[in-house]
Amino acid sequence: MAECGASGSGSSGDSLDKSITLPPDEIFRNLENAKRFAIDIGGSLTKLAYYSTVQHKVAKVRSFDHSGKDTEREHEPPYEISVQEEITARLHFIKFENTYIEACLDFIKDHLVNTETKVIQATGGGAYKFKDLIEEKLRLKVDKEDVMTCLIKGCNFVLKNIPHEAFVYQKDSDPEFRFQTNHPHIFPYLLVNIGSGVSIVKVETEDRFEWVGGSSIGGGTFWGLGALLTKTKKFDELLHLASRGQHSNVDMLVRDVYGGAHQTLGLSGNLIASSFGKSATADQEFSKEDMAKSLLHMISNDIGQLACLHARLHSLDRVYFGGFFIRGHPVTMRTITYSINFFSKGEVQALFLRHEGYLGAIGAFLKGAEQDNPNQYSWGENYAGSSGLMSASPELGPAQRARSGTFDLLEMDRLERPLVDLPLLLDPPSYVPDTVDLTDDALARKYWLTCFEEALDGVVKRAVASQPDSVDAAERAEKFRQKYWNKLQTLRQQPFAYGTLTVRSLLDTREHCLNEFNFPDPYSKVKQRENGVALRCFPGVVRSLDALGWEERQLALVKGLLAGNVFDWGAKAVSAVLESDPYFGFEEAKRKLQERPWLVDSYSEWLQRLKGPPHKCALIFADNSGIDIILGVFPFVRELLLRGTEVILACNSGPALNDVTHSESLIVAERIAGMDPVVHSALQEERLLLVQTGSSSPCLDLSRLDKGLAALVRERGADLVVIEGMGRAVHTNYHAALRCESLKLAVIKNAWLAERLGGRLFSVIFKYEVPAE
Amino acid sequence: MAECGASGSGSSGDSLDKSITLPPDEIFRNLENAKRFAIDIGGSLTKLAYYSTVQHKVAKVRSFDHSGKDTEREHEPPYEISVQEEITARLHFIKFENTYIEACLDFIKDHLVNTETKVIQATGGGAYKFKDLIEEKLRLKVDKEDVMTCLIKGCNFVLKNIPHEAFVYQKDSDPEFRFQTNHPHIFPYLLVNIGSGVSIVKVETEDRFEWVGGSSIGGGTFWGLGALLTKTKKFDELLHLASRGQHSNVDMLVRDVYGGAHQTLGLSGNLIASSFGKSATADQEFSKEDMAKSLLHMISNDIGQLACLHARLHSLDRVYFGGFFIRGHPVTMRTITYSINFFSKGEVQALFLRHEGYLGAIGAFLKGAEQDNPNQYSWGENYAGSSGLMSASPELGPAQRARSGTFDLLEMDRLERPLVDLPLLLDPPSYVPDTVDLTDDALARKYWLTCFEEALDGVVKRAVASQPDSVDAAERAEKFRQKYWNKLQTLRQQPFAYGTLTVRSLLDTREHCLNEFNFPDPYSKVKQRENGVALRCFPGVVRSLDALGWEERQLALVKGLLAGNVFDWGAKAVSAVLESDPYFGFEEAKRKLQERPWLVDSYSEWLQRLKGPPHKCALIFADNSGIDIILGVFPFVRELLLRGTEVILACNSGPALNDVTHSESLIVAERIAGMDPVVHSALQEERLLLVQTGSSSPCLDLSRLDKGLAALVRERGADLVVIEGMGRAVHTNYHAALRCESLKLAVIKNAWLAERLGGRLFSVIFKYEVPAE
Repeated sequence: MAECGASGSGSSGDSLDKSITLPPDEIFRNLENAKRFAIDIGGSLTKLAYYSTVQHKVAKVRSFDHSGKDTEREHEPPYEISVQEEITARLHFIKFENTYIEACLDFIKDHLVNTETKVIQATGGGAYKFKDLIEEKLRLKVDKEDVMTCLIKGCNFVLKNIPHEAFVYQKDSDPEFRFQTNHPHIFPYLLVNIGSGVSIVKVETEDRFEWVGGSSIGGGTFWGLGALLTKTKKFDELLHLASRGQHSNVDMLVRDVYGGAHQTLGLSGNLIASSFGKSATADQEFSKEDMAKSLLHMISNDIGQLACLHARLHSLDRVYFGGFFIRGHPVTMRTITYSINFFSKGEVQALFLRHEGYLGAIGAFLKGAEQDNPNQYSWGENYAGSSGLMSASPELGPAQRARSGTFDLLEMDRLERPLVDLPLLLDPPSYVPDTVDLTDDALARKYWLTCFEEALDGVVKRAVASQPDSVDAAERAEKFRQKYWNKLQTLRQQPFAYGTLTVRSLLDTREHCLNEFNFPDPYSKVKQRENGVALRCFPGVVRSLDALGWEERQLALVKGLLAGNVFDWGAKAVSAVLESDPYFGFEEAKRKLQERPWLVDSYSEWLQRLKGPPHKCALIFADNSGIDIILGVFPFVRELLLRGTEVILACNSGPALNDVTHSESLIVAERIAGMDPVVHSALQEERLLLVQTGSSSPCLDLSRLDKGLAALVRERGADLVVIEGMGRAVHTNYHAALRCESLKLAVIKNAWLAERLGGRLFSVIFKYEVPAE
Repeated sequence: MAECGASGSGSSGDSLDKSITLPPDEIFRNLENAKRFAIDIGGSLTKLAYYSTVQHKVAKVRSFDHSGKDTEREHEPPYEISVQEEITARLHFIKFENTYIEACLDFIKDHLVNTETKVIQATGGGAYKFKDLIEEKLRLKVDKEDVMTCLIKGCNFVLKNIPHEAFVYQKDSDPEFRFQTNHPHIFPYLLVNIGSGVSIVKVETEDRFEWVGGSSIGGGTFWGLGALLTKTKKFDELLHLASRGQHSNVDMLVRDVYGGAHQTLGLSGNLIASSFGKSATADQEFSKEDMAKSLLHMISNDIGQLACLHARLHSLDRVYFGGFFIRGHPVTMRTITYSINFFSKGEVQALFLRHEGYLGAIGAFLKGAEQDNPNQYSWGENYAGSSGLMSASPELGPAQRARSGTFDLLEMDRLERPLVDLPLLLDPPSYVPDTVDLTDDALARKYWLTCFEEALDGVVKRAVASQPDSVDAAERAEKFRQKYWNKLQTLRQQPFAYGTLTVRSLLDTREHCLNEFNFPDPYSKVKQRENGVALRCFPGVVRSLDALGWEERQLALVKGLLAGNVFDWGAKAVSAVLESDPYFGFEEAKRKLQERPWLVDSYSEWLQRLKGPPHKCALIFADNSGIDIILGVFPFVRELLLRGTEVILACNSGPALNDVTHSESLIVAERIAGMDPVVHSALQEERLLLVQTGSSSPCLDLSRLDKGLAALVRERGADLVVIEGMGRAVHTNYHAALRCESLKLAVIKNAWLAERLGGRLFSVIFKYEVPAE
């Protein structure tokens, strides 16, 4: 959310407010590379959408091409690191009040470089009113899109691509926002869009929808009647008045009419019997706040009942509410939720969307970009560029509230590969990746926010150190610090701003912010060095393992995996040790491990299982680079291969902390193959396959995995899933239910978390699970 | 509707207006005999109900007990007429604004004589607020009744007992009101009561109902928000403002948002997209009229959609709207009807009730009177005492509108015997008694209203003449004239005031007004004299008929029936002749008849039928007294008896014009039996049965017949129905479809009607119909 001097009364819709200043890199970002445009002008808010190609640096690795000269290799890094420019596609959505439309169009015209685009997709009522202004300013032909089609395409898009998009609102519980994991099958659903008026649409498939009802009592009514009654012209101020009002001074309640509850009809005493029922016969004046609150209740209750009736008529149990009337306002969401629960006796669920205002613009854009077939790609929210759910709740500080009313942003990055469910998930609809919901668990939230704030200095230093020869590294690093610090403060204030707050979302936000300021992979050099050291130790480790008896070897292999996992720069305790003692080696790590019995210890069952027939195919999700992958994972992989089990080794598509990336794993495998015939032949015969997860996070969402990986898992009939590391196996997937055997193992390198789980620093989780029959 | 000086601002609900003067015999009538009380105090209107025993004069006939002295009988009237006092039960319902409640309670206290009643049933919200005031004033204990139960009991009562209770409202067509005949099976239905708030109830049986939904956006909202927006405090004035407003100045229409209709969603351009949508961004002030209209549309549309959704959810196609918000206001009814049609695509019908305001009071009263089991009786509206649907439409003259806002009355008389459908009706739900709907047929309306106005003098003279020895007959006759004249003017202005306007309702209203001023049977002496004359001619007529050949006799019998029917004092042309030429005899009447072929002539089919097997049992509805019954009907009955057909002769329960009453028919039959063995033995062996129809009208509603008659019809397997006379066979039942053979015959004694039917004065209708296989 960008700060900008939005002065000017901005009162009347028609007179445009030109007094606004727009910091170029903050609101209409990357305009110079903007291609396709779409605009949705509603009764009161304008949403602009455009697609831009974003240049950003990506760390690349390439093995040196030198044949035979072993000696030099000894001290050479295993591969070359280079930084390359890559172009990825990004969608930008900006929301602002119609009063600023002319200023914004001027701004875009000035910054627009690419003249290729000839057309701008336009939807929403205003598209008609401002058609000439847009064409004159942008010299683009306005191509009108039907508003409902856009709303629905937009809704399908956010429901499919933004994990924590929909949420249930529970006023009095903490957190008020309970985010829903993405339902793999989003159809059919009911969309209730509350703009100036209300449209109720049944959405059956991507392209099939039907307008089933509507009402003229919508946002425009609240705004219009509110303005007449309270002489307050601004929509947000009206909502603000309402949040401080007492509707029972204005409304006739059931108890006012019947002296209490109405037994026979089962109506409680404080139900509203008649909105504004008291104002006809009462003589005294009513406060603005009370009238605004009564109006808000009247409209929300009505919409809630209509939606619920339509839902029941079409036997649908999920109703999504969109449109500018909601805008994350607690009072509105609470009344609609109350009304739906009341009229459906709890059978229908009211769901709200984090990005409800953008649906039209997203849809219009997708309509325009149809030939690029955007639906075949997966998209991910760029936390760095998005302003997050800005509930203008009263508790919000004045600064936030001012901004919330001015500019809202959403950025979505097109992922290179489409993401799908892991086919081995027991019940996709109920799968929740994150173990702890920080929006829910206040204590944990407080700890982790502080933890990330304290770690920020280290990350900034790391970033600067990773680009020694860059002139502006320090300046960019400071911008990174400021941006991430602001995000953390927003999340302190509004934990639900980006959906459910989890350790994963905190980590991912940090990665996005690093990328934002061109620090794609701050650990590239560290990983390069550690991989080098580990590769040199590989033959020795393998020899010592082969010398052991079978049973002893299995325990050593597991210990190796666990010890390897200690080398996690992301973990606070470890990064401190590694900083101080560069020779902290593999053996020292093993000694640091907790003795058995581990905190979670199903090793004996695992050993018992190993005495049984070999698994057909094991899917292993690797964690850290260096000792972890080379001295922990590969020996374990080698053992599986020797038992006749095929192995799919899945590593991150993009860098995160010092986790191994897919491209690094290819080089490491190649070097290991050079030293070990078992790995060599497995690679040749494709019994060992290296794939990318489609993720660039230290954690793991099994419902958003690379399509290729999922296909392979199905093809090779994977019957064992191994998830390694605190991020992937504890912060996420600790409770994930799979349809096959699974092994979740990690060393707890965070004292607070260890205590939380009933253990101590370096406690061991070794969780082997077999699906119930 | 009583005129009364309702002065005083009556503005604020709480401060009571004592300045009202109440003419005792006009509003709270017959209080001195009032028994049970019930009161329904809503948010703005009070409805009082009480039950009184009404003394009124009834004409009785008794045959002279003289044995054997034939000679004296010659010049003596056939029977003795006497006037007796009879007590019948009447329900009174009075509606007025809460501001007059104290004045009314005082008035009742002063006039209350009967101290037997200890309790007053009370319902509606206000019952709680005014509880102490009522108990203090009336010294009756308030017994609170649940408002919804009362509403439903009241609704069931009016739907069952008031034929033209429900109507469909069609704004632009003439008439706007299309009344529905009573559906024999009124359950299940949806009742939407719009008081201060809205309650939607599914009514499944007399005692089983379920609150399915409701809304706080009801009458109280219109009144409350309206008062705030327009500073107009009185509900009716608000409605009046609305009727002169243009909502499109305030509302955002679909075309304002999308520049025209919305193709994909199929929404027409002038649909309201957002109520008050223009008032947020527009700078200019809005007129009170426009705001009131927009508010009215907003509320009516919303209620319409909710009702329609609930109706579809419970697969009901009839929705009745009640509650003070409607009150016959065209704008409200039109918007609700439009909304229901729009959202149900014409599958659900919006129905309004003539007496919607009274439902609560009627229900409360019935609840209190439960031990008398009011539901076992049938009730009929007393047109003389009821104020009729007073649509406060703008076109209404100021006088009417002033009254409409002050006092409304409804009176229901308990009929001695329960009324049911004639079992021989082909399809009861679609049976419509009246041939011409005068609310629909403006030309016919104009004619008949003028016809009844012109006949009024005659009726007044007749009434005075019928009570030569009464001192105040002239004064009462003038009051009758004034009352009936006012009714006719109301009907000129508001043809739909008492439901569908028909010749039947005009006739019945006149009978009620005559009864009101104690002229129960103005034609009693005329009938007595004519019966005497006819009885003396009976033997000669029978002899001449017996002398004819079979075929000739059948034609003579039919001609006799037709000629007899000419003697109808109700028919304008005939009453003029009878007045001038007292000796206008049976033969002269025959000669007046139209020669064959008659206007409608299925005599040959009838003759052909007579050659077939005799009918099992014929049900004959007789018309006039004197020559008609004695020289026309009885010879025809005699012929049927001789063929072996049983006969049920049905005559009016109460007097109407010079129609024969059941009690007169008993004496006439007795005297004829004395002269004719065929009739004598038939009476003895109960092959001839004399029954009462349950009606006191010159016309005939086959869906409201005496339960005894219906049972007899079923028991004797009646397979022929004969309906005689213009009132019963032309003004009503001309198109009635029966499940057995039927004979409808009449002489058209009204030139205008004859012309209308394509004939001339004294044209003959002889319609013999056989039901399709």
